[in-house]
Amino acid sequence: MAGNSFGRILRLTTFGESHGPGLGGIVDGCPPGIPLNASDMQIELDRRKPGHGPTATSRRESDTVHILSGVFEGVTTGTPIAFVFANEDHRSSDYGNLADVFRPGHADWGFFKKFQGIRDHRGGGRSSGRETAARVAAGVIARKILEPLGTHVLAACVELGGLGLAADLWPDLEGARTRPYCAAHDSLPPLWDAAVAEARTAGETLGGVVRIEARQVPTGLGEPVFDKLDAVLAHAIMSVGAVKGFSVGEGFGAARLRGSANNDPLLPTNPPRPGQAVFASNHAGGILGGISSGQDIVLHAAVKPIASIAQSQKTVDREGHAATVQVGGRHDLSAIPRIVPVLEAMTALTLADALLLQRRFTSP
Amino acid sequence: MAGNSFGRILRLTTFGESHGPGLGGIVDGCPPGIPLNASDMQIELDRRKPGHGPTATSRRESDTVHILSGVFEGVTTGTPIAFVFANEDHRSSDYGNLADVFRPGHADWGFFKKFQGIRDHRGGGRSSGRETAARVAAGVIARKILEPLGTHVLAACVELGGLGLAADLWPDLEGARTRPYCAAHDSLPPLWDAAVAEARTAGETLGGVVRIEARQVPTGLGEPVFDKLDAVLAHAIMSVGAVKGFSVGEGFGAARLRGSANNDPLLPTNPPRPGQAVFASNHAGGILGGISSGQDIVLHAAVKPIASIAQSQKTVDREGHAATVQVGGRHDLSAIPRIVPVLEAMTALTLADALLLQRRFTSP
Amino acid sequence: MAGNSFGRILRLTTFGESHGPGLGGIVDGCPPGIPLNASDMQIELDRRKPGHGPTATSRRESDTVHILSGVFEGVTTGTPIAFVFANEDHRSSDYGNLADVFRPGHADWGFFKKFQGIRDHRGGGRSSGRETAARVAAGVIARKILEPLGTHVLAACVELGGLGLAADLWPDLEGARTRPYCAAHDSLPPLWDAAVAEARTAGETLGGVVRIEARQVPTGLGEPVFDKLDAVLAHAIMSVGAVKGFSVGEGFGAARLRGSANNDPLLPTNPPRPGQAVFASNHAGGILGGISSGQDIVLHAAVKPIASIAQSQKTVDREGHAATVQVGGRHDLSAIPRIVPVLEAMTALTLADALLLQRRFTSP
Amino acid sequence: MAGNSFGRILRLTTFGESHGPGLGGIVDGCPPGIPLNASDMQIELDRRKPGHGPTATSRRESDTVHILSGVFEGVTTGTPIAFVFANEDHRSSDYGNLADVFRPGHADWGFFKKFQGIRDHRGGGRSSGRETAARVAAGVIARKILEPLGTHVLAACVELGGLGLAADLWPDLEGARTRPYCAAHDSLPPLWDAAVAEARTAGETLGGVVRIEARQVPTGLGEPVFDKLDAVLAHAIMSVGAVKGFSVGEGFGAARLRGSANNDPLLPTNPPRPGQAVFASNHAGGILGGISSGQDIVLHAAVKPIASIAQSQKTVDREGHAATVQVGGRHDLSAIPRIVPVLEAMTALTLADALLLQRRFTSP
Repeated sequence: MAGNSFGRILRLTTFGESHGPGLGGIVDGCPPGIPLNASDMQIELDRRKPGHGPTATSRRESDTVHILSGVFEGVTTGTPIAFVFANEDHRSSDYGNLADVFRPGHADWGFFKKFQGIRDHRGGGRSSGRETAARVAAGVIARKILEPLGTHVLAACVELGGLGLAADLWPDLEGARTRPYCAAHDSLPPLWDAAVAEARTAGETLGGVVRIEARQVPTGLGEPVFDKLDAVLAHAIMSVGAVKGFSVGEGFGAARLRGSANNDPLLPTNPPRPGQAVFASNHAGGILGGISSGQDIVLHAAVKPIASIAQSQKTVDREGHAATVQVGGRHDLSAIPRIVPVLEAMTALTLADALLLQRRFTSP
Repeated sequence: MAGNSFGRILRLTTFGESHGPGLGGIVDGCPPGIPLNASDMQIELDRRKPGHGPTATSRRESDTVHILSGVFEGVTTGTPIAFVFANEDHRSSDYGNLADVFRPGHADWGFFKKFQGIRDHRGGGRSSGRETAARVAAGVIARKILEPLGTHVLAACVELGGLGLAADLWPDLEGARTRPYCAAHDSLPPLWDAAVAEARTAGETLGGVVRIEARQVPTGLGEPVFDKLDAVLAHAIMSVGAVKGFSVGEGFGAARLRGSANNDPLLPTNPPRPGQAVFASNHAGGILGGISSGQDIVLHAAVKPIASIAQSQKTVDREGHAATVQVGGRHDLSAIPRIVPVLEAMTALTLADALLLQRRFTSP
Repeated sequence: MAGNSFGRILRLTTFGESHGPGLGGIVDGCPPGIPLNASDMQIELDRRKPGHGPTATSRRESDTVHILSGVFEGVTTGTPIAFVFANEDHRSSDYGNLADVFRPGHADWGFFKKFQGIRDHRGGGRSSGRETAARVAAGVIARKILEPLGTHVLAACVELGGLGLAADLWPDLEGARTRPYCAAHDSLPPLWDAAVAEARTAGETLGGVVRIEARQVPTGLGEPVFDKLDAVLAHAIMSVGAVKGFSVGEGFGAARLRGSANNDPLLPTNPPRPGQAVFASNHAGGILGGISSGQDIVLHAAVKPIASIAQSQKTVDREGHAATVQVGGRHDLSAIPRIVPVLEAMTALTLADALLLQRRFTSP
Repeated sequence: MAGNSFGRILRLTTFGESHGPGLGGIVDGCPPGIPLNASDMQIELDRRKPGHGPTATSRRESDTVHILSGVFEGVTTGTPIAFVFANEDHRSSDYGNLADVFRPGHADWGFFKKFQGIRDHRGGGRSSGRETAARVAAGVIARKILEPLGTHVLAACVELGGLGLAADLWPDLEGARTRPYCAAHDSLPPLWDAAVAEARTAGETLGGVVRIEARQVPTGLGEPVFDKLDAVLAHAIMSVGAVKGFSVGEGFGAARLRGSANNDPLLPTNPPRPGQAVFASNHAGGILGGISSGQDIVLHAAVKPIASIAQSQKTVDREGHAATVQVGGRHDLSAIPRIVPVLEAMTALTLADALLLQRRFTSP
């Protein structure tokens, strides 16, 4: 109920503040017999690690994951998989001046109001982006559940600071992992370098858009009414800090299409097979009536500019008096690209959970 | 788990197919002592009723609601409130030809795959829009829980068939209820009449965008991590059929703003009061770090064109052979404006649930 | 959260007061393709129906069930199965004098305190035994899920008014269904007839003990820690009004056995087969470490005497003044035997839910 | 779903095997502002610690708890409270011979069947009693939530090896904490010393009965239908390994009382006050219709003899062949008294959760 858990059959619970003793998570409901070790997690965690690339902070976190339970002799046992990250880079003094003011655009005000004036103000406390390390680690477990089916999740940045892909180019997600900014195309990083340089000089931060795809998704995932697959994916993606918009398939563009243009016709396979079909297009983004159709799932997430700008901002203090805040600490210039593996992880967790839930209908 | 329930403390479970004996819902978790009767529900249900306005079907459903439990001597008792709608207009023969083919853009394919070939094909069965009548009825209970705090939810159509509000006009949600199309401005219906007439002639359907606002929302609602208030609202809104995109505040536009433009400064109240502030702007849309800030909550939902077009479409049959389908039955030309009270209801349910959950911190 | 739902994958939600317009339930999560119709339910409901047997009230309820959804062409569709019972025998005037006093041993006091003074006092309102009709109907769905595996549930009364089975006799559950009192042995009804006659003369009520068995239960059901199969069964059984004690296997008797007497040795099958064994005894009652072992599950439930006695009792009124209450209405002399099909239903629901949950580990 | 979580508003999730790197838990949903530190937990943990008293193993575990999150400047913040115990006494070799056989009376067989042949056999793995350390630590948080209301939980052993309290003595729970065996009366330890000595010589183990009381419980806790307070308490108590029976109030004894003897009359307070009453007796055990009445809650739990006896036992190996097992490792002779703080913790967790849930009805 307190919102620190996600998933029904495969269920992640996270804990921890950015400047306490440690943070981590528990994944409950993972089937037995799945090969897993900490180094599998570390590969994805390193993609989220601060200190890489042009939008990065100079802060260092080792983000080394330790698995405490649920794995025996290299495979999962079916019991809860707990993992922790120690917090090592405690420069809490950076945040001392934030105890009494509310940073604009941050979670400070909401936490203050929700938790009756009590709040761990150091580095965002529970609302710190560092919490997402646990999501990325858990996402690796989800990926391994999906892997035997060929199901996999990819994401890439398609827009940064308002600069997106030229209209005649197609996003290339496979190559994104090794490109600067996790960009969706080779043409993007040079554009973005200039925008980032300019923003850094201006003490500004930038937002962007991430495209997420899930490939080779089994048909039949998702529940018809409230837990439509796209509704749960929206929940998952919008639960990542800084995300302000979500869409599936044509998204907001679908509002401008006519029915005949937006519908995806079904065609026979060659040769025709009972209960089989191919789709002539994928405007729906792989989900029909809340249930996976077997086509690629295509999502977009809108990411706001990071709230911690290098400028003095107006705010109030706990007493309600006018104040200014100049955010210290070491902050990224954009949540892009570090947010990419987090969005992939949330997508993988949602799909793996839906897959395990759908198995209730499997006759053994 | 099977996705027919929504909410944690205030929990709605719906049931029923469009052409079975009846449909309805149960609201569990409503506090005792709230005045409620069926006529309160009927007012909102009549807004969702088919047969009104320029985009409507000629189908008639009485949508008369019967409360079966949970209300005694005009007030809620704290026990489950069940309500049913009888299905009266059983022209199932309209759908006989749909048993063996999959309508493009519909839930047919997904249901077929999910439920192992078993499906009530009449009028969409469980995926029928008629299911949303139960959501609207439940939304009335949520509204009544919110009412003593002044919290209320409004929505209006801001775009139809690609035609939106002129840049210098501001959406007027209070007036929408009595305007054709539940339009957000007097200038819109004339534009839309022409577009609808053209689309009808062409055998087409139209999509649009709905703006939803919640006013006088208490601060502190929403949970910090996975159940951020905007994440749960996204879940709620995306669970309504035909919705393909969701945003909060500036939404996808926030991706193009810089940090200094997107942050909302806090200003002192006059005179300053401890723990109080006003915001200089509302780019965030009333939610910071997943928690309500006290500002108006502002959401947008992208609605796709209805899949049932009056044209012959390519598809396959259960045997996988090529087929064409000409959708009979009586269908709206757009989900707008009937979807508006449904989106309001889902928003109200989410907020009332978050409110009751937040009360766990209240010392009696 | 409000406690009107039970189950995780197969989930029953009930609603309704004894004297409102109707009551019923929704079963969500039933797999598609299971043959089901109302008459299947009616057979079990008739076992719970008042007016039969020596402990019965003279009240008549038709308890005719109507299925509203989730069944199409004689089989379940995988969508929610809703069913209702109309309330026909509204002699609410019997209860008019109960609005202002609290009947000893009844739920009146707790409801008054919980729901802030608001309560439907007619016939117990929500706490009426009539709510269990919905459990029995839902239990039929659970039985049908279990049936293809051979898994079935039986129960019988082994004690009434302190009179139980002679030490050298063994309970015979198969025959109980057709015996008076749903008695576990032919020797019991004559004993009990005398006790019941005496109690009726004295204006008293009687309690008893019910034995429940589940046969041919698959191994591996139940979750290791908090949701041990016996813990969930305890929850299920103790949720039935009037049940004051629960045990599995030797139960309280196990506290008096030594380890060597209580352990159940495993023996080879003949011939030995990998991963197969037979047990030399069943002191555990079919559950080891919270997981079904494959042996018969054996439970006992202690049932208190019905609180509505035909005597004047001391109580207080809403103003806190001393009062007496003479319970009118028409009441059974014992919850036995009508409680038997309810306990069977709760057991079947628990097992079917555990079975569907366990299927998450099934590779399709 | 996977059963490693308990509670609705206050929710404990535990993880860890007895011989992996560590175990622990997360408590989610604790209100902010509650004073808490690790030493509060340690006091209760030391009661559960092995190596004390006449039934103890010689194994040593430090059971030192480390809080990782959710506490800042000595008070809870409202965010998840995670805590871990390192596993220090890894004598896994004691268990090497158990990898291929199933110990009678243990969870081995069930785990093997449930998790498809995969199982951490060292020290019971996930089914080890060591998991209950996390419950005891979490119980301290629950106690602190209850403390301001005066609500507190006590327990004591009332029977061991069949030897219980003389009929004319009354259990004294306040003194139990400092008595050997956590005994309910000074007269018990001498009786039990002799029985334990005899059992140890015989290579046997003993079971017993624990009485649990909750005092000064607010009225109105518990939900009317499936989540009756006694049903949830039964779930909680039966989820503790070795518990085979549960009862509330008169329990199985209620089955032998007549209605007039079992009902608890309500009497006026002096002077009478609206909505107030005192009860003339407490046969119900503090719960009426599933809702706390304000009287003391009285529960009993039947504890089986520990399955690890110092005798050779018949079993089978993974191949299904006959085998014998002589359990090595270091084992207690009885779960009593170490189970006592665990049962107290589960009771406190259930009550604190019910309390926070009931606050949904509190008008702020």
